[in-house]
Amino acid sequence: MKKIEHIGIAVKDLRKSNRLYAKLLGVEHYKIECVKSEGVNTSFFKVDGNKIELLEATSPDSPIAKFIEKRGEGVHHIAFAVDDIGAEIERLKTEGFELIHHKAKPGADGKLIAFLHPKSSGGVLIELCQDMDNKE
Amino acid sequence: MKKIEHIGIAVKDLRKSNRLYAKLLGVEHYKIECVKSEGVNTSFFKVDGNKIELLEATSPDSPIAKFIEKRGEGVHHIAFAVDDIGAEIERLKTEGFELIHHKAKPGADGKLIAFLHPKSSGGVLIELCQDMDNKE
Repeated sequence: MKKIEHIGIAVKDLRKSNRLYAKLLGVEHYKIECVKSEGVNTSFFKVDGNKIELLEATSPDSPIAKFIEKRGEGVHHIAFAVDDIGAEIERLKTEGFELIHHKAKPGADGKLIAFLHPKSSGGVLIELCQDMDNKE
Repeated sequence: MKKIEHIGIAVKDLRKSNRLYAKLLGVEHYKIECVKSEGVNTSFFKVDGNKIELLEATSPDSPIAKFIEKRGEGVHHIAFAVDDIGAEIERLKTEGFELIHHKAKPGADGKLIAFLHPKSSGGVLIELCQDMDNKE
């Protein structure tokens, strides 16, 4: 694992939350991206070397909608940058972690991603992400 | 707000979680600290420029024990580094955020800290922290 690439935060209303987080962080979001495969609209803020990703559900059956229904708005996942996501998936499996995705798949922000199941990682939903540019 | 100083994660058993997070992050924790005033034992991991702080309750009525009772283990707060915590508290008040601590107080890891109430910050418990060395 390298640095914390971003923290993903589930929000009900992206426009409203973009204003809130701009006030909180003292910077505006720098991009909005729709990830159809995940059923989310996302926006990104940069705070020094880290990013904050806000996630709004695009349908009532998206994982973000279900998360908010169960727990309310708040931190959804922590994403760590990795150099070689395939190798990291294998390392974590060997260490006994349960992967939601056994193979990396394209995510937001030009990344290859994979999630670990929170039940094997202390209740924290962990995302691994690798820049697409690093892809062989 | 400057960078994400650390992410605080509520855990039931610090020793057990230290082993789990060492496997996950690929590094061992570098210190353990008891913060009596907050009713917590903490351990810290460094991942590149960020830290992960594990928090274990030292009594059943500590905020961490209550958090785990309500939501289970998981992300408890996000801490942002600030240069001048007094000025940042005032700025956030002016922006309409609700502060749990209206004045900075000593926290773990040689920091002056203050928390924002999650109900005014989108369900996310936010900590501000300033190095004690920056104190006038």
